[in-house]
Amino acid sequence: MKTATDGPVGHAAPFDDPAALRAACRAGRFDGLTAGHAPGRVQANLMAVPKAWADDFAVFCQRNPKPCPLLDVTDPGDPAPHAIAPDADLRSDLPRYHVFRDGEFTEQRTDVRDLWRDDMVGFLIGCSYSFEDALARAGLPLRHLDEGVTVPMYRTNRACAPAGGFSGPMVVSMRPMTPEQAARAVDVTRPYQRVHGAPVQIGDPAALGIADLDAPDYGDPVTLRAGEVPVFWACGVTPQAVVLAARPEIAISHAPGHMFVADLESAALLD
Amino acid sequence: MKTATDGPVGHAAPFDDPAALRAACRAGRFDGLTAGHAPGRVQANLMAVPKAWADDFAVFCQRNPKPCPLLDVTDPGDPAPHAIAPDADLRSDLPRYHVFRDGEFTEQRTDVRDLWRDDMVGFLIGCSYSFEDALARAGLPLRHLDEGVTVPMYRTNRACAPAGGFSGPMVVSMRPMTPEQAARAVDVTRPYQRVHGAPVQIGDPAALGIADLDAPDYGDPVTLRAGEVPVFWACGVTPQAVVLAARPEIAISHAPGHMFVADLESAALLD
Repeated sequence: MKTATDGPVGHAAPFDDPAALRAACRAGRFDGLTAGHAPGRVQANLMAVPKAWADDFAVFCQRNPKPCPLLDVTDPGDPAPHAIAPDADLRSDLPRYHVFRDGEFTEQRTDVRDLWRDDMVGFLIGCSYSFEDALARAGLPLRHLDEGVTVPMYRTNRACAPAGGFSGPMVVSMRPMTPEQAARAVDVTRPYQRVHGAPVQIGDPAALGIADLDAPDYGDPVTLRAGEVPVFWACGVTPQAVVLAARPEIAISHAPGHMFVADLESAALLD
Repeated sequence: MKTATDGPVGHAAPFDDPAALRAACRAGRFDGLTAGHAPGRVQANLMAVPKAWADDFAVFCQRNPKPCPLLDVTDPGDPAPHAIAPDADLRSDLPRYHVFRDGEFTEQRTDVRDLWRDDMVGFLIGCSYSFEDALARAGLPLRHLDEGVTVPMYRTNRACAPAGGFSGPMVVSMRPMTPEQAARAVDVTRPYQRVHGAPVQIGDPAALGIADLDAPDYGDPVTLRAGEVPVFWACGVTPQAVVLAARPEIAISHAPGHMFVADLESAALLD
C-alpha cells in the first residue's frame, strides 16, 4: 500500500526548508507524506477542536505526556502556531487533512480554511518523525522510509489517564531493529521527551495487546527482517483516537503521515 | 534570614518517605522547608485557582514549559494529584500555604481545607528541588542547603509567552558553582526537562535584568564564593507571579521553599 505516498502532484526531492514545504502545501503543489522532509525540524500531529472541547483536551494531553506531548496550542480562531512556526497557517499548510463530524471521518482535504471556526483551537502534538533524523544519523534503520510508506501504528491495551470526556487506549508506532540497535535507539530518543522520548516497549507486541504486526490500525505494515524485534514508541495518533471517541461536532486532524512541519529545530527540544 | 527554616514544631532529621512527610504536614507536626527531604522524589510548586481561571492557565503553562513544567492537574474540586501522589490531599499535605485574594497576599496557612472550593483546580509544577539529589550525587554544591535557607529566586527581564489574561516575566532560581561545576550541572539537569531541565543562563545576572544577587525577589540570598559564578534555572515561582498579576478572586500556592513532596521518583521523569 504505497498509494498514499504519491500526491496528485509528484515531488521528486525532499524539501529541506519547512517554510518551502508549507508554501507548497498552501499553493496545492504538495500533498505527500512528510517523513524524510525538512530533516532536523520538528514534525507535529494536528488536532483542532472547538474551544468547548479544547479545555478538557488540554488537560488530557497534560496527563498523558508520553503519547500526547503538547508542542503548541493556538488561541481560539487563530490559525498560527506561534511557538513552533509563527508564520504558518494551520488551515492550509499541511499536505492533507482528515475531517471528522460527530467523531466520524467524513472527508480528506488539502485545505480546511472554510472549516476553521472562530472558536477553533489547534493542538500541535509532537511526532516521532522529529527524532527520526537523529536515529538516521546514529545509523539506525527506518524501515518505513526505506519502503516509502507511513510508519505502522497500533492501538494497545494500555489505557490513557482520562480527563473530562476524553479517554482511550495509547497508540504506538513501530520500527523494526536488531536488539542491539534497539538499545541504541533508547539512548538516542530518550532526550526527545517532547516528541515521545524513549520507546515504551521493545519486542513483545502481545503484551501490548497487538495481535498482528502485519495489520496496523493506522499507517502501513513494514518488513520485520530475521533477527529484528519491533520497537514501540508512544504515538501522537493517540489523541486523535481519543478525541474522535468523544464525538465533537467537528474535529480536524492531519492525515496519517501527512504531518505539520514546523520551523522549530528538533535539537531545540533538548533544552 | 533563617527563620522560615524552623517550624513551630522542630523536626531534626529529614524525612525519607514522602507519605510520612505529608502525613506530618496533615497532622500539624511539620511545617518546615522541604529541600533535602525525601531525596530522589519529585517536589512540586502548587498553584490552585478556580476553574474559570484554570483553562487559560493550563495553556499558559503549555506555552512556557521551561518555567512552568506541568506535572499534574487536578479535576475541579478534587484535592488528589492522581498522577504524582494519588493518596495525597493538596489541601493539607503541604507544610505551608500562601493565600491570595484578588492577587494580593492575605495570609500564610498550614491547612486550606476550608478554602478549597468545589471548582478549585490544582496545578503541580515541577520544582528544581527534584533534581537537587542528582546534583548532590554528582558532587555539585547546593549552597542554600548548606546555609539552611530557601534557594534565591529572581524576576528576570525575559517575558513569558502570554495566554488568555496571563503574562509576566520568567523567574529563575540560582545556585553558585565554579565554571567547571556549572558545565557538569548542565549535563546533570538537562534530562530533567519536566522539572526545568538545563540552566537558562550561566554567569551574567545583568543580562537577565538582575541588579543585585544579594537581594533576591523570593527566597534568601546565599554566599557566592571566590571563583564561583551564578547558575540560573527557570523557576516554578514564575507561574505564581503570573497568576497573581491576573488577580483571581482566590489563589492558593505553597509558601516559598515549602513544596509539595510527591511519591513520583525523579528518575521517572527521565522516561
